[in-house]
Amino acid sequence: MGYTIQSVLIPTEQSYATVDVQLEDDRIVAIAPQLEARGVVIDGRNKLLLPGFVNAHTHSSEMWQRGVIPPVPLELWLAELYDFTPLEPEQIYLSALGTAVETLLSGGTSVVDHIVLIPGQEAETIAAAVRAYREVGIRAFVAPLIQDEPFAYGLPINGSSPAMEAQVLSTEATLDLIRDAVNQFHNPDAGISILVAPTGTHLCSDALFEGCIELSEQYQLRRHAHLLETKVQQLRAQEKYGYSAVTHLKYLGYLGPSTSLAHCVWLDEADIPILAETGSTVVHNPLSNLRLGSGLAPILKYRQAGVNVAFGCDGSASNDSQDLLEAIKIGSMLHNVTDFDYRHWISPRAAVEMASLGGATGLNLADQLGSLTVGKKADLVLYDLTHLSLLPRTDPIGLLVLGRPTQVVYYAWVNGKAVIADGAVTTVNVADLKQELWNRSQWFIEHQSPLRAAIEARYRSIMDLPL
Amino acid sequence: MGYTIQSVLIPTEQSYATVDVQLEDDRIVAIAPQLEARGVVIDGRNKLLLPGFVNAHTHSSEMWQRGVIPPVPLELWLAELYDFTPLEPEQIYLSALGTAVETLLSGGTSVVDHIVLIPGQEAETIAAAVRAYREVGIRAFVAPLIQDEPFAYGLPINGSSPAMEAQVLSTEATLDLIRDAVNQFHNPDAGISILVAPTGTHLCSDALFEGCIELSEQYQLRRHAHLLETKVQQLRAQEKYGYSAVTHLKYLGYLGPSTSLAHCVWLDEADIPILAETGSTVVHNPLSNLRLGSGLAPILKYRQAGVNVAFGCDGSASNDSQDLLEAIKIGSMLHNVTDFDYRHWISPRAAVEMASLGGATGLNLADQLGSLTVGKKADLVLYDLTHLSLLPRTDPIGLLVLGRPTQVVYYAWVNGKAVIADGAVTTVNVADLKQELWNRSQWFIEHQSPLRAAIEARYRSIMDLPL
Repeated sequence: MGYTIQSVLIPTEQSYATVDVQLEDDRIVAIAPQLEARGVVIDGRNKLLLPGFVNAHTHSSEMWQRGVIPPVPLELWLAELYDFTPLEPEQIYLSALGTAVETLLSGGTSVVDHIVLIPGQEAETIAAAVRAYREVGIRAFVAPLIQDEPFAYGLPINGSSPAMEAQVLSTEATLDLIRDAVNQFHNPDAGISILVAPTGTHLCSDALFEGCIELSEQYQLRRHAHLLETKVQQLRAQEKYGYSAVTHLKYLGYLGPSTSLAHCVWLDEADIPILAETGSTVVHNPLSNLRLGSGLAPILKYRQAGVNVAFGCDGSASNDSQDLLEAIKIGSMLHNVTDFDYRHWISPRAAVEMASLGGATGLNLADQLGSLTVGKKADLVLYDLTHLSLLPRTDPIGLLVLGRPTQVVYYAWVNGKAVIADGAVTTVNVADLKQELWNRSQWFIEHQSPLRAAIEARYRSIMDLPL
Repeated sequence: MGYTIQSVLIPTEQSYATVDVQLEDDRIVAIAPQLEARGVVIDGRNKLLLPGFVNAHTHSSEMWQRGVIPPVPLELWLAELYDFTPLEPEQIYLSALGTAVETLLSGGTSVVDHIVLIPGQEAETIAAAVRAYREVGIRAFVAPLIQDEPFAYGLPINGSSPAMEAQVLSTEATLDLIRDAVNQFHNPDAGISILVAPTGTHLCSDALFEGCIELSEQYQLRRHAHLLETKVQQLRAQEKYGYSAVTHLKYLGYLGPSTSLAHCVWLDEADIPILAETGSTVVHNPLSNLRLGSGLAPILKYRQAGVNVAFGCDGSASNDSQDLLEAIKIGSMLHNVTDFDYRHWISPRAAVEMASLGGATGLNLADQLGSLTVGKKADLVLYDLTHLSLLPRTDPIGLLVLGRPTQVVYYAWVNGKAVIADGAVTTVNVADLKQELWNRSQWFIEHQSPLRAAIEARYRSIMDLPL
């Protein structure tokens, strides 16, 4: 089934044009004024068509913990997260659905889910997320979050030898898990890709990174990881390697045009050209970086150095939403306070390109996704410009990026299929989803995190904070 | 007509309680479990009741320019704003309606409108805004934006003598305008207050500040102004006074518990105790400060020094929305990156208090507004906790502040009157408003700002930026 979107506004180099856009199967097949109508005809008047955005870093199951963790830095926040992590594959399925729905309703058509695995049910976790993404019809990049070193390595260890948690898999078992997931689920043409995605240098051995590189070469998998989200991670990298984490990832061969790296807040000046030379992508998660006090990632410097930058929401417990338009707004204006020269600031049009083509580039799919181009995949979003939040009429992209649009996604197509029509998700029943989320949760009145209590004094000492 | 809100969740010191809340006339008259039903009965189950927030600084008519001004700093942005400013009182009326509706739908029940006056139609501008606020029923603090020095004084003048624009009123005529507005419209009990509100030290003479102090004493008016929003304003204050703008405002006698000051980004350490001692309020406008690259206001330092802080959206052309929940979210988490000690960070509960009681305190109305207290004015907001953006259930205030709630305001009362019921504005027709905003606007395809072009080279030179 194809579509003809008639008389729709699309951005041109400096301005806008009114055109018809035709979709056939999974592709954009024509963009021109007054095409002959074919397939389903959509009235595009008073609407803006853009390429779908990529939610380039999230952890879907954190949806169960959103709103509940107090404002504390990553290392303490992680302790609280682990204490309250969901433990049933059915919860994974529901939060993946919720993450996908919120992403779609805020302009995203792809999601990179750095998914936290339930100890002992790792394969079931991956299967539950894949099931959700297949049902909802978002383009999903499922990146199982793996590590093979103790949780305590998240802080500098200062010569001690923390014990491994019983539930962490060995390096070999971890790599086997990913290989199995690839064999079972990896099918990019059908919209599901498996990524190799070590947590980050602070919790992963060289053997794990090397195994991931092998798998990614064998199966053509994209690569993902966290990178230097916090000052503590920078300290730990120096302690572990004696030099920067970026240099070490380069030495291991993990960097490259298929590699996207979440956060990149605490890089040195010398690290930046390494990302540029290797064609690696930075995924900027502005709301998480603020919420956790991680810092201001030097995004303007990355862009000036030619590093590709994409946007992510990060998990719902560090945001605490999956609204991609909010991440794009804050992620593009936040850096204005870091450079008096406004010629370096990110314009709304640049922000749209980062969110779409930048996201596609981070997945080494810029030839397939990320722009309104004949022959590319039909991953598109049609915005209704008549909503109060986008009025009065001025510059549509300015309103969309700088404003706070709500309920403005009128249609969204993934792989040529309309997953949102008339403002509603077509593939899953959102009322049922809400009911399930309601039934399986309760108002947290008070909570205490034993793990946080166990590490807080050490954290404060490392960060040179009064006890 | 009164209301009984049954079985509703309200915050207690550390937790939540389920109670009934009774409103009569303009007041909260009872808060207790299982009250005898009186008046209209509202089912409060699965809902959260909070005091209404104060949108403590905005410029309503900027709604006409939202989305259209590129990312540039305040001084250049102002030039673009002036070039495209609305010029008809009917536009003022419509954008005041729009500002009120967006504020109400995001938890605000009061708005401080530092309203830009149409040259030559100053009185008509004020009248149009007052008409809108009376109709929509929000509690309005109308603060006509006045100045009596040339626009060029917005930048350091370095000994030159810029000419006065023909359309700027004299100091006396300006004060007469405010006196007339007070006589005609100032009626706090009915929900309309007039404030004295010089633009700021950079564009106002001492005589204007002194005249405003006299008026405020004569009529018990609240005081408002911008304060040190940008580095350029700090430079200009040093040039104009030879010392800090805060010291000068103290010397003039403008500070005090009825004075709220928007932005306060570029204060010195020594300025902070002056704000605390005088009981003045800082209005934090985080989205505007980011959008214009003004800087990170030292909000954590203000709070530690005992300075009251409230939140504002600022005008829609520097935000570009009037969603108060967004300003509260970003304004409370933004400062986590300025202090490694998370014990100083703003919790969701503290953010709610800043937005409600902090806003009321900034208007010297903490005895009347800003908390769920028997005897206080019934300015209340009832949030529907069953919306997807607030699920799954965890901590209601955490979800509301840290998440991205949309369409969650179920009821809002101002002065005991329900201005939102069942999620819809009861007082004005929002569909008609949208149609008017649509009819009176057009897609801006390209625009040039002559005024910006005229001052840009000077701006870059002052800021030591390459030409």
